Parts: sequence; structure tokens; C-alpha cells
Amino acid sequence: MGNTFGHLFRITTWGESHGGGVGVVIDGCPPRLPLTEADIQPDLDRRRPGQSPLVSPRQESDTVQILSGTFEGLTLGTPIAMWVRNEDARPDAYNEMATKFRPSHADYTYQAKYGFRNWQGGGRTSARETVGRVAAGAVARKLLRVQYGVEVLAYVSQVRDLTAVVDNERVAAEQIESNPVRCPDPEAAARMAALIEQTRRAGDTVGGFVQGLARGVPPGWGDPVFDRLEADLAKAMLSLPACRGFEIGSGFSSVLMTGREHNDAFTVRDGVVRTVTNRSGGIQGGISNGEMIWFRVAFKPVATVMHEQATVDVNLQPTTLRGRGRHDPCVLPRAVPIVQAMTALVLADHALRHRAQCG
Amino acid sequence: MGNTFGHLFRITTWGESHGGGVGVVIDGCPPRLPLTEADIQPDLDRRRPGQSPLVSPRQESDTVQILSGTFEGLTLGTPIAMWVRNEDARPDAYNEMATKFRPSHADYTYQAKYGFRNWQGGGRTSARETVGRVAAGAVARKLLRVQYGVEVLAYVSQVRDLTAVVDNERVAAEQIESNPVRCPDPEAAARMAALIEQTRRAGDTVGGFVQGLARGVPPGWGDPVFDRLEADLAKAMLSLPACRGFEIGSGFSSVLMTGREHNDAFTVRDGVVRTVTNRSGGIQGGISNGEMIWFRVAFKPVATVMHEQATVDVNLQPTTLRGRGRHDPCVLPRAVPIVQAMTALVLADHALRHRAQCG
Amino acid sequence: MGNTFGHLFRITTWGESHGGGVGVVIDGCPPRLPLTEADIQPDLDRRRPGQSPLVSPRQESDTVQILSGTFEGLTLGTPIAMWVRNEDARPDAYNEMATKFRPSHADYTYQAKYGFRNWQGGGRTSARETVGRVAAGAVARKLLRVQYGVEVLAYVSQVRDLTAVVDNERVAAEQIESNPVRCPDPEAAARMAALIEQTRRAGDTVGGFVQGLARGVPPGWGDPVFDRLEADLAKAMLSLPACRGFEIGSGFSSVLMTGREHNDAFTVRDGVVRTVTNRSGGIQGGISNGEMIWFRVAFKPVATVMHEQATVDVNLQPTTLRGRGRHDPCVLPRAVPIVQAMTALVLADHALRHRAQCG
Amino acid sequence: MGNTFGHLFRITTWGESHGGGVGVVIDGCPPRLPLTEADIQPDLDRRRPGQSPLVSPRQESDTVQILSGTFEGLTLGTPIAMWVRNEDARPDAYNEMATKFRPSHADYTYQAKYGFRNWQGGGRTSARETVGRVAAGAVARKLLRVQYGVEVLAYVSQVRDLTAVVDNERVAAEQIESNPVRCPDPEAAARMAALIEQTRRAGDTVGGFVQGLARGVPPGWGDPVFDRLEADLAKAMLSLPACRGFEIGSGFSSVLMTGREHNDAFTVRDGVVRTVTNRSGGIQGGISNGEMIWFRVAFKPVATVMHEQATVDVNLQPTTLRGRGRHDPCVLPRAVPIVQAMTALVLADHALRHRAQCG
Repeated sequence: MGNTFGHLFRITTWGESHGGGVGVVIDGCPPRLPLTEADIQPDLDRRRPGQSPLVSPRQESDTVQILSGTFEGLTLGTPIAMWVRNEDARPDAYNEMATKFRPSHADYTYQAKYGFRNWQGGGRTSARETVGRVAAGAVARKLLRVQYGVEVLAYVSQVRDLTAVVDNERVAAEQIESNPVRCPDPEAAARMAALIEQTRRAGDTVGGFVQGLARGVPPGWGDPVFDRLEADLAKAMLSLPACRGFEIGSGFSSVLMTGREHNDAFTVRDGVVRTVTNRSGGIQGGISNGEMIWFRVAFKPVATVMHEQATVDVNLQPTTLRGRGRHDPCVLPRAVPIVQAMTALVLADHALRHRAQCG
Repeated sequence: MGNTFGHLFRITTWGESHGGGVGVVIDGCPPRLPLTEADIQPDLDRRRPGQSPLVSPRQESDTVQILSGTFEGLTLGTPIAMWVRNEDARPDAYNEMATKFRPSHADYTYQAKYGFRNWQGGGRTSARETVGRVAAGAVARKLLRVQYGVEVLAYVSQVRDLTAVVDNERVAAEQIESNPVRCPDPEAAARMAALIEQTRRAGDTVGGFVQGLARGVPPGWGDPVFDRLEADLAKAMLSLPACRGFEIGSGFSSVLMTGREHNDAFTVRDGVVRTVTNRSGGIQGGISNGEMIWFRVAFKPVATVMHEQATVDVNLQPTTLRGRGRHDPCVLPRAVPIVQAMTALVLADHALRHRAQCG
Repeated sequence: MGNTFGHLFRITTWGESHGGGVGVVIDGCPPRLPLTEADIQPDLDRRRPGQSPLVSPRQESDTVQILSGTFEGLTLGTPIAMWVRNEDARPDAYNEMATKFRPSHADYTYQAKYGFRNWQGGGRTSARETVGRVAAGAVARKLLRVQYGVEVLAYVSQVRDLTAVVDNERVAAEQIESNPVRCPDPEAAARMAALIEQTRRAGDTVGGFVQGLARGVPPGWGDPVFDRLEADLAKAMLSLPACRGFEIGSGFSSVLMTGREHNDAFTVRDGVVRTVTNRSGGIQGGISNGEMIWFRVAFKPVATVMHEQATVDVNLQPTTLRGRGRHDPCVLPRAVPIVQAMTALVLADHALRHRAQCG
Repeated sequence: MGNTFGHLFRITTWGESHGGGVGVVIDGCPPRLPLTEADIQPDLDRRRPGQSPLVSPRQESDTVQILSGTFEGLTLGTPIAMWVRNEDARPDAYNEMATKFRPSHADYTYQAKYGFRNWQGGGRTSARETVGRVAAGAVARKLLRVQYGVEVLAYVSQVRDLTAVVDNERVAAEQIESNPVRCPDPEAAARMAALIEQTRRAGDTVGGFVQGLARGVPPGWGDPVFDRLEADLAKAMLSLPACRGFEIGSGFSSVLMTGREHNDAFTVRDGVVRTVTNRSGGIQGGISNGEMIWFRVAFKPVATVMHEQATVDVNLQPTTLRGRGRHDPCVLPRAVPIVQAMTALVLADHALRHRAQCG
């Protein structure tokens, strides 16, 4: 259980780090959407390890294949199955993990839950699991763009204590992709890159924030009381490896304001109800209000470090473990396409839900 | 759509602020659990307006009635329907809301989504909607306590910039309930109460943080990759009115640490795998690891203030609106039982899910 | 679990024969549908015991109350909660059922599953449970009628070996309701009534068939491969107490024809693709084809008879049991509104699903 | 939507007749179940076309590959992805189907619903879609056998008007597989084979009944009121191509009996509550009672015949169409493993559901 996400635009992911591959089935995508592998591969390339010195060096081409659900370049309305074959399988590199629990990884909890686990590369707990999410998210993004004019963006807004200055209303994808950190503030990006590189050399890791944005969402998406738009976004983000927190709009900082200071006054622009400020993050009462949706996602420093750490083995004996080989100093640049993907999946689902009940 | 929560311990809530009442149906509660209204009423009393000068003065007894699903004081395994009749209906008090959109409320988005809304007291957008959640949460808490020895707690940890000092491992329900703020640090509670009272007199509102805790959760609960325990908790919390953010364990502050600093080393205590620190918040890879679960929930200052605010009416004309009558200066004391309820609902669901797949 | 039906037009029912009452929550009904109790009560009156000498004599007014989800006579898009209070509670009449398992009832299986049961009047296993279905079905029927021009009908087509001759294309609700059997063939109805009355006097019971019809369903409803329209109808019908079988269109009799004989040739009428015959029952490949949907539902003779029957008690001792008091000789007349309700619920759900994915 | 089945043991199938392949993802299978391709391939071989002269001659090896969810021969508790590559793709053979709607096929309804379709080999409407069901069903059967001692069987009980005489309590898999008809009554099987061969030579098709059986199901499986065991079985069967009807236990024939005749008296055997007769089909009130579950499934004669038939084309012009190449005179022998698979999927799901709520 737990590997399906969405109510109407619904995805089911599968696959372990080592084994046949990783993939996803999308059920509920509307028919007649133009779709080929060329719509999906670029996002996978952005998620892929080894794309820059800043990220994990694992070498896989991650070439996606659409196995069903399209015909002559259009979606059929039937399930869209996509997969990426595993290539860089080096099970020997993980032999130690067969018997030792890596600190702050999921080795122990998987063992405790299932009584058994694929310890090669972390199995299902590997970040490789997100391949299916990114592939499905690319389809959702295309649907949102083509049918609704919605644009979904994400970027790295903070690495450790280094913060970027960005105009969320105007930032463009090109600016984000202009550097390997995926931070659209060039100066901050340079400092972040230096910090990541320095952290890598120290065999350590560093976390930070990814900023998520959705522009063009019309008023009315979101299903109170439980499936509020921000609730589904929060779940989507907290379902990501290494994610530790989520805030919508003014978020945590809202607690320092009074109600008078915080409220978004209504006004009319171009014959449409708008808010003067947008502390609500584009969502009020769980429903989009037509303003830009903005939120922030916290990622902890990833757990694999190149230093000896105290742990225990499967026989409950104290031991130590030291990361080797594949060390990803900062998950943030690769988290950007994943956050985009999950955002798009939530929005596509709610677009269809809105059409169903209120269309 | 959107009014059902949970996969196996599943609740469906209904009801508007004005109308027949508010209620909930629980489907999936195990049979033979001792249950009467006396198990539920105390939590509703803690959620109820008018319980102290610090909270909304709306006067309702909120007396719960169990309509089905129990027999001779035990649950039957069939749906448990519970409801609370609406009493303090003063529709006239809301006449202005029929035509004007309250800033940072959901009046406009409901109108935009449904083309129609019950403007009396906010209808379904009223915090009164949480009555059903709290009633169901009381059942979930009892199930967790009786069948699993799990204790769920919550308390106010911060009001605006006033923070409490609390030992999460030891804090007890009695300490939390010892003052109307529901903050177990008596000194902080006194300052918080003063701030809330001062805010109330100023016709303004103030937000803050609720800390959530769950002790005694065994290793193995949580369903990766999407239904991770922290993902379901995040969704549960962000589905609450006025909630703006969620963090698990070290949360947002984790971004300021390196991986070496942040990792929780494993050890063995009493023959059981434990972590030396608990920055993971009791959850690793989406699955409980046997440590205390801890998380923090941010609530914005509520939107109804006793001051004139700019807004527009349903005819898109500029106008002003001023709160009147019922003014709740701080949602936090009443949010405590609601956070507890949602936490218990998530945990009860995952207890049953774990039993299903791995039991 | 198991008390929710539907994916987008979703109902959750609750309640036992004895206890507070029985009810239903509808989640997902579109907003702005005119709806009051007057739309629902007539169907409940048709389901009600005591309405004619042919059915169970239990005396309850079954007055429905809408508790939420409407405002000024229109649906809000929020959950619609409805309930009927239990009145005719005579727990003493069922004392014997506390310790003895009634043959071919669900007393034993509920005891085996839940380890506990409400034996008063059968508790949740009572046909009284269908009150919520009928109430929700009335809303679904109104939605289908108002927004889609779909008409859902049902009638008794066979009692034991007595069959009716009916033109399904033309039969009208008035003809069905013109006699207490709810069979639109007056001559057959008279013979059926005589058989039912004779059976009643013999303290025995009799079963038969209900024919279901839906006219005006546009092409395109139904979601292969699992949620085919006929699959969801089959589930809906087999979820009814005493239902033993379901067939769509030519059904069981199709096995006696060859493919050449059975196939429905396509033609064009009024610029629309139509079939010359309709052995497919208005559904092909799980999707409506624009023809009338027709199907048949088999109901066994109900289990409560006025004769001594061999059984065992909760201590596994042989004993005997004899029905007393409330004896319903034939479930069919009251099953008619229930079959209508379930049909409407399936169709309303698929209307919204179609709108979501292909709208 | 509509391509996922099950609540806890949940499958999602994908794939068209022509395209990359067909497959399935199982989510929720318990961990540590021994599983390799060798557990699955035999059932696919029984479903495969070309296995005998009695069935469709399409030539594909249908070799299954497990892509995820197992490790060292055991299930991991993570999603199990399986697929079969398409081999015998001869799109040219279907050129006529691009523009003409085959009578009593789903060409027209898919076109009407999605506005677009893969006409090659019927695309998703092809019986090839059932490959994923059979593969998943093999896993479910293994789970039921290993963890619960439940045996699921199916056989052909009637072809057109030729009926078999079989002792359901004793019939064994070997008897069923002893002839290509999959009818365990050898004499009837011979007559059925002759009829099918004669029908094949006539370019026509013939339908009939498959009998389903489950032995060893303990009391307590099934979730009233909607997810009754027989309701989920009915949905499972009616979701199969060419299925027209379903009956549980005495089924349609129950309408010819009175309640006194029909009721199953309770008795005690070996210290366990049993029924003297089993007209209830092993299910009472939607819950298994410990007796053998038995039901019957009606399949119409398949629609592809080797004769010219009247139809219309996509431009609404009258035309004719004649099947060519692949002609399957009788779906029944290949339906047997499919009915088994769907039965096992329903039972495995309810086994886990029971464990969750009442375990």
C-alpha cells in the first residue's frame, strides 16, 4: 500500500534502486493530449545523478520508455505506463548495508516493518524511486500547460544559511536552469555552489529550501475539508525523501504578524476579484483564489556522509559505518524537478476534480 | 469530494456552522472497543468556544450523540455516526457576509468554486467543521491507548514570539490542561495569556505554534512511498483552518546543520534498536522507528478582526467590512485538541494498515 | 470499512435497525441542484415497510431530515447528511435472536467476523440499512434527471415463476406504481399479488426478479477495465440484502445464442450511431453506447419464515427458531426503489467521472 | 481511471493489444512470500492464445518478467511490477478497424468516450488486457494458499446448452486441466470440444458458463454493506470482457424456491458452526460463513465472427465488416484462469481487510 497518489489523475510508482528498473502507471489522464518520450526525458535529465559536479555521481542515462496509453503521439485515455531500466547496478558496493543500518536512513525501519529488505542501493528507499514521480509529473505539467495555461516552477531558494533574492512573480525557467544549483539569483547561486563543493570535499552534506510556484491556477481548485489544495501539496512534499517541512504562503513567518497585518485585502483588477497582497499563498479555505500559489519545502542534509558513524547491525551489535563511493553533497538541485513534478500532480488531480464536481 | 480522511480507519465529516448540525461517520473502527459519549465529550469540551476568556465566545454546549455503531457500550465494527446539534444560530449576525467577502476568509473561494455558498457563520468554512474531527479523533485515541499503548499529546509551544520551554519526553496531559492557553510551561503560559488578552482588547488576533507528540508508537507504521507517516501527518495538519505549515522532527532548522551533525546514530537499549538523538522525529523513510514522534504546526492569526478592512462585494464593488460579535483572538488553545485528534486519526489508520500488510 | 460507495458521487451509510437511526452522507454532489426533503421522502415511502399488505408490517414513518449540504433549497457542493430516526424499536421482540442464529441470515457471520453483534432486529444486517441508499439515490436520480435527462426505472418482472410482459422502451413510472406489487403488467401483477398473499398466509416467502432500466444515458459513461458500467451495477445490486444474481442485457440467455445471432448490428439514426438490436444492454466494452440500459436482478425468498427451523445457538447447541411478528412474504415490491436508487448512484458517479476525464 | 482494483491487495493494470506490452503493478502484497516468475508463468500459459485448437490462434509466448518487489525469491512488501512484452503485432491485419466499428465490440464506445482509440487489435479493449489480471491473480492465489490454505478453482460448466455434471466439493485442478475445454466431466468435455470445433468451422462463436469455487475460506471475510464478498466477486466477474451475468450460490434458481425450501439450516460439525445445505454459496450477509464459496459466471459468444456483418464507419456511413485471421470460437477455456485470478484477487483483498479490522 501507499504507492498510489491522486484521486482522478492517479499515479502508481514501482521499482527499487537495484532490480529491473523503476516506473509509473498514470491512470486518468485525459485523452488526446500530445505526448511522447520527448516531453518526459528533459525532466528526467534534470533529476538524473551525474548531471553536474554538485550532485550524486551515479551514472545512468535514465532513458524513459512509454509502454502504453499513447497512439500516434496522443494519449488514449487509458493507463500510461512508463519505465526506466536500471543500469548502474553495482550490488557489491552495498555489501556492508546488508548487515548494518545506515544512520538516518530507512534501512532499520524497512527491516522492522517488512522483516526483510532489498539492501542493494537502498532498494525502494533510494531516491531513485522518484524517477516515476518525475515522469508522471512531466505529463501532468503538459496537461496543465496545454489545457489550463498553468505554469509550475521550482527553484533552490536557500542552501544552509545562504538565501537567494528572487521575484517570484517574474522568475522564469531559463533563469533557474542557468546554473547547476538551480537558483535563479546568479550571485547567490555562485555562493551556494561554492558551499556545496566545499561540503562535498569535506565528505559532508548540506540541506536547504526549495521554493515552489504555480502561476495561472484559476479560482476554485481544492476540495475542503480534507483535500484542501495546501493539504495535498503538503502531503506531496512530505512524501519526498529528505523533506522535513512545508509552508504555504507566509507560512511559519505568519505567526509573527497580527491578523490585521496578515490579512489580504480584496480588490478588483480587470473585472476580477484579486487580493492586494498574497500572504495566503494563492489558497484560501483550501481553494485556489486565482493568485500565484507559492510555498516552501525544507530538505535536511542527506544522510550519507563520508565519515565513520556509530550504528548497529542486524544482530543488534554496535558497529560503525562509513559512506563510500556515491556521495551526494546536496539534494537540492535534483529536488527541484521533483518538487515541480509533485506540484503538477496535485494540481492536475484537482483540475479534474473541479471539472467533475463543478464543471 | 474531499470530506473523507483515512484509508482503513476512515472518517467522513459533514455540516455547516448554521443548519442542522455537524457530525462524522467513522468506518473501519475495530469491534469490541469500549465506547460511550463519555469518551468523546471531554475532547469536544476542550474544542468548544466559550470555555475561557481567551477563546471565541460563541455559546454552544456541543453535546455529542452516538447514533450508531455501538451496542451495550462496545463498538460493533459497523459505522459509528456521531453528531452535535447546532444551537447558537444567529443568522442575522452574518447578514453582511451575504454580500461581502471577508478578507483572508474562504467566502470568495467558495463562491468561485461552487457558485453558491452558505454565508451564515461561514457555513462549511467555519471552524465548527472540526467538531466531527475531534469526535472521531477521540475514538482513534481510545483505540490507540487501549490496543497499542500509544499516547497522543499536543500543546501550545509558541504564541507570536513567546516560546515555551518543555521537556517533550516527560510532559503530561495534566500540565497542558492546567491553564487556558494549554501551554505546559506555566511561566510562558502566563505571558501568552497576557498577550492574547491584550490582542483581544485591541480587536486583533495572533498566531503561533502547536507542538504535536506521539509516544509509544512501535516501529513499522507508515506506508512509503506516498503514504509516509509524516506525509499523512502533514496533510492532516494542513487540512486544518488557519494552518500554514508543518515540520517533522528537526524540521526547518535541519537546513542549518550538516549531515554529520544531523544524523541520528543507532544504538541498542534494552535489546531494542534505538537512536541516540531523535532529530528524525521518530520517523525514518516514512516509517516509525520506535522513538517519540514529534512535529510542529504553524497557525496564522485568524482573519476576523474588529477593525474595518477593505474588501469587495459579490457585485465586484469596493466596500469595507468590520468583524463584529464573535472575535477569537487566538485559535491556538482550541487547536490543541484538534491537532491531537488529527494525529490520532493518522496513527490509527496506519496501525490498521500495518496489521493488514505485515500483521 | 465497506460502507462507502462511489468514487466521485460518493455515499457513506450508517445505522442499525435499533439505535439512534439510519442515515447517509453524500460527498461530491454538484452545487446548485434544487433539493429539499420533498425530493427524497417519496422514495423512502416506497421503500417503507407497512405500505401495503404485501410487505413487512413494521410501522415507521421514516421521515427524512436533511442536516447539511443545502441552503435556501439548493445544494452547496458540501456533504449532504440525511437521516431517519428509528421509531418502531421493540427490542424485546428479538430476545431469542440474542442467543440463536437465524438460518440464512447474517447473525452467525457477523458474530464470526466481529465477535459481537447488535442482535436487536438484525442490527446493521437489517434491510433497514437501505434507507440511506434510497435517500442518496433520490438525490442521484434528481441530478441525473435535471442535468442529464436520464430516467431510471425498475419494476418487478417475475415473482417465483410468474412473469410479466412489459415493453421496456415505453413502460412508465405510473404504470409501475399503479399496483402494490410494482409490476407494470396489470394481469401479471394481480396473479403475483395473489401468490404473495397466499405465501404470506402459509408463513412462507417467495423471491423473483426486478428489472432495472436507464433511458437517456449518453454514450461514453463507464471506466474500463475494472470500473465498467455493468461491473459497478453488478456490485451495486449484489450489495443488496437477498440479492443472488445479476445479468446485463441478454445476460444468461446469451449463452444459448451464437455470435452471429447475438451481435448488435450498428446503424445510423438521426445522425447518431445506434444499434439495431440491444442485446448488449446499452453497454459495450464497459461503456454506455447510447441505447437503453437494461438488466435483471435476482432476489431469493427472504429468510424469515413463520415455521420452526433447525439451528444452533451461540453455545453451539442445537435448537430451533421460529419467526414471529414481522414477516415479509416478498421483498420485491420494496426492492424496486432500492434497485432504482443503486442504479442512479452508479450512473451519477460515472456521469461525474466522465466529465472529469473526458469533459 | 478505472484500472485499479482492490483496496488493500490492489492491482493496477496497463497495456494495449499492440504497443510495448501489457502489465500490472500489485501494491499491498505482504512481505516474505516466496515468489518467482515460475509461480506466474503457468497461469499465463493457461490464458495464452494458441494453446489448443479450441482457442484463438494468436501466437505469443507471453513470458512474464518481474521488474520489482522481490529480492532473493521473496516479496519485499513493495510494489510488484510485472509485464509481458507484445510480440505478435500485426497492425496491418487491423487496418479495416481503423474506420469501421465492429458490431458488439467496444470500438464505437471507446471512440465516443475518448474521441480517439488505438484500433490495432482492439487496443485496451482486447482480451489481451487480462494478462495483467492473471499475473496478479497468480500472486494472490499463492498468498491465499500459503498463508490461509485457501484453494481457488474454476472450470467450464456449460457450453451453449451442453452441461457438465461435477461434484464441486471434490473436483480437483488436475481433472479440470485434463482436457483443453477445462471441463472436469470428461464426457461433457468431449461433447463441448466437438461443439466448439463445429462452431469454429462455421466461422461462428459460442458462449457458456464458468463455475467458480473457493474452498477453505474461513468465516468472517467480506465487508458489508457495500463491499460484501459476493458484491466484489460480481464486480470482478462483470469487469471481464464478454461476461454478461453472475450468480452466487443458488442464484437465479433461488427464485423458484420458497424461503422454507431455500434456507440453510445451521448445525455443528467438529465443534464448528456449519450449514447443512449450502444454497447461500458460502456467504451470508456479505460475509463468508466457512462453507465452500461457489458461483457461476455467464459469458456471451464472442463478437468476432467470420461472416459479413452490417455496421457503420467513423463517418457514419453504412458498411459491412467481416472478421479475418484471428477467430476464437469460444472464450470459455481461456476464461477459466481469468475467473480464478479475479476470484483470488477479491479473496486476498478481503483476507487483508479482515486482518486489518478484526485481526
